[in-house]
Amino acid sequence: MINKLVIIGVGLIGGSAALALRAAGQVKHIVGVGRSRENLDAALKLGIIDAAATDAAQAVADADIVLLAVPVGQIAEVMSAIAPHLSAHTTVTDIGSTKRGVLGAAHRHLPGHLARFVAAHPIAGAEKSGAAAAMVDLFRGRTVVLTPMPENDPISIGIVREMWTACGAVVREMAPQEHDAIFAAVSHLPHLLAFALVDEIAQRPNADELFGFAASGFRDFTRIAGSSPEMWRDICLANQAALLSELDAYQMQIGRLHAALEAGDSKTLEQIFARASAARNAWVLRQNSD
Amino acid sequence: MINKLVIIGVGLIGGSAALALRAAGQVKHIVGVGRSRENLDAALKLGIIDAAATDAAQAVADADIVLLAVPVGQIAEVMSAIAPHLSAHTTVTDIGSTKRGVLGAAHRHLPGHLARFVAAHPIAGAEKSGAAAAMVDLFRGRTVVLTPMPENDPISIGIVREMWTACGAVVREMAPQEHDAIFAAVSHLPHLLAFALVDEIAQRPNADELFGFAASGFRDFTRIAGSSPEMWRDICLANQAALLSELDAYQMQIGRLHAALEAGDSKTLEQIFARASAARNAWVLRQNSD
Repeated sequence: MINKLVIIGVGLIGGSAALALRAAGQVKHIVGVGRSRENLDAALKLGIIDAAATDAAQAVADADIVLLAVPVGQIAEVMSAIAPHLSAHTTVTDIGSTKRGVLGAAHRHLPGHLARFVAAHPIAGAEKSGAAAAMVDLFRGRTVVLTPMPENDPISIGIVREMWTACGAVVREMAPQEHDAIFAAVSHLPHLLAFALVDEIAQRPNADELFGFAASGFRDFTRIAGSSPEMWRDICLANQAALLSELDAYQMQIGRLHAALEAGDSKTLEQIFARASAARNAWVLRQNSD
Repeated sequence: MINKLVIIGVGLIGGSAALALRAAGQVKHIVGVGRSRENLDAALKLGIIDAAATDAAQAVADADIVLLAVPVGQIAEVMSAIAPHLSAHTTVTDIGSTKRGVLGAAHRHLPGHLARFVAAHPIAGAEKSGAAAAMVDLFRGRTVVLTPMPENDPISIGIVREMWTACGAVVREMAPQEHDAIFAAVSHLPHLLAFALVDEIAQRPNADELFGFAASGFRDFTRIAGSSPEMWRDICLANQAALLSELDAYQMQIGRLHAALEAGDSKTLEQIFARASAARNAWVLRQNSD
């Protein structure tokens, strides 16, 4: 049982975790911290949090768990603000999409609390944001990746693991480098590519006409280009090395396709398309059978 | 009223056109032509066609309209097979995703019938294929682009226009070059990029692990990579020049992002992401308000 849970950033992820833990009977008192009074009021009204605070430093006192549910770009600042006020027993965890940068920030800003800072990444999201978008079942069946570090107290790792398990998630552990390499490939690169395409088209004189003929394929391909620019700027920069390596590999791949197309090499085009189509359809089948 | 409509290729597009025209009371007799007896039997059973034929040459005699509803890679062969057997009054049209290649094929294979060959591209599709996937409302509110050529008899243009209007579509006319440039940007390039990403990941030793962590963003981004490899090979080759030009522009754009990421240039990253996000969200709002 969590006696006091402090959630800094009561958005989709933080709010959904609150709802899920409450539904599981795993938490007594939830304090939400945020900059927007309007969002906190909504969270109070929706029963997501029991109390609202705008000062993170004050709010974290005596917490069992502090969940840093803010975008990676804000995490250093929040760590720095709460560091002097954390109780010795408090477990701190985050929800960031990149892990090496977050662990670096923890070493800089929570040097006295490293045993109890356990980095985590719940693989869940939706197009909406804010407390009003929170859903009790957002994490049900989803994966949460923990990237523990040698300094971690196993008790705190266990507390974070239990918290996400209580939300219905499946918890996996891996090294932060491995996490960042995987998500550079299957999440950060696709976002960057989608942003690149939409902007390239939007900058043209006939952009309206082009968008006017775009159909469902374009709509799905570019859905992630509607994401928050600030958040993705910060994720890309936080995962710079791994993302550059993915981008290099992708540029080589489309260089191969360019050469094949220019040469009218139908065999190479079909080979690449066929391997992709088979892999994609097999992946969807596996997902649906889960 | 169409007395005799011959549909060569009774798949999703051909079958849906048949259902829509019949529902609109615009056609008396529909003959379906195809290589797969199984698919034709399904089309007969579903009431999509009135008669089935495997020999296109025989089937087209005395038709008012012959709809070439085959992939662009097969269109030259079909034109060549039916050319000697077309009645003088028969209007021929197609559904191909690229138009300059189709018009080139018409000049080579239907030289005596150019007045009555009107190229068209219905902007509609779905993940499923075959007659069983046909839907009466597939074209409702969708755009069909006609790319008439100087040789066309205005009467045949009118017939094709009326046919698609009767299916519920909105008909637009443009030059074939313009059509091919637009669809290279908003359809063919995204397909190529999605195939490229999925294949690049599928070829890695840890592909299963990578796919295992892919989430809804990746799923949507790569949906079109599940499309038919043969069909997209043919579309890419048929639209080679326009697609190469789009690919060049895209490679430059991701070159800019690569440079910005390498330099830690957060301003440029945010600028590109923000323009893309704004354009994408505005486009979705316009679509939803239609």
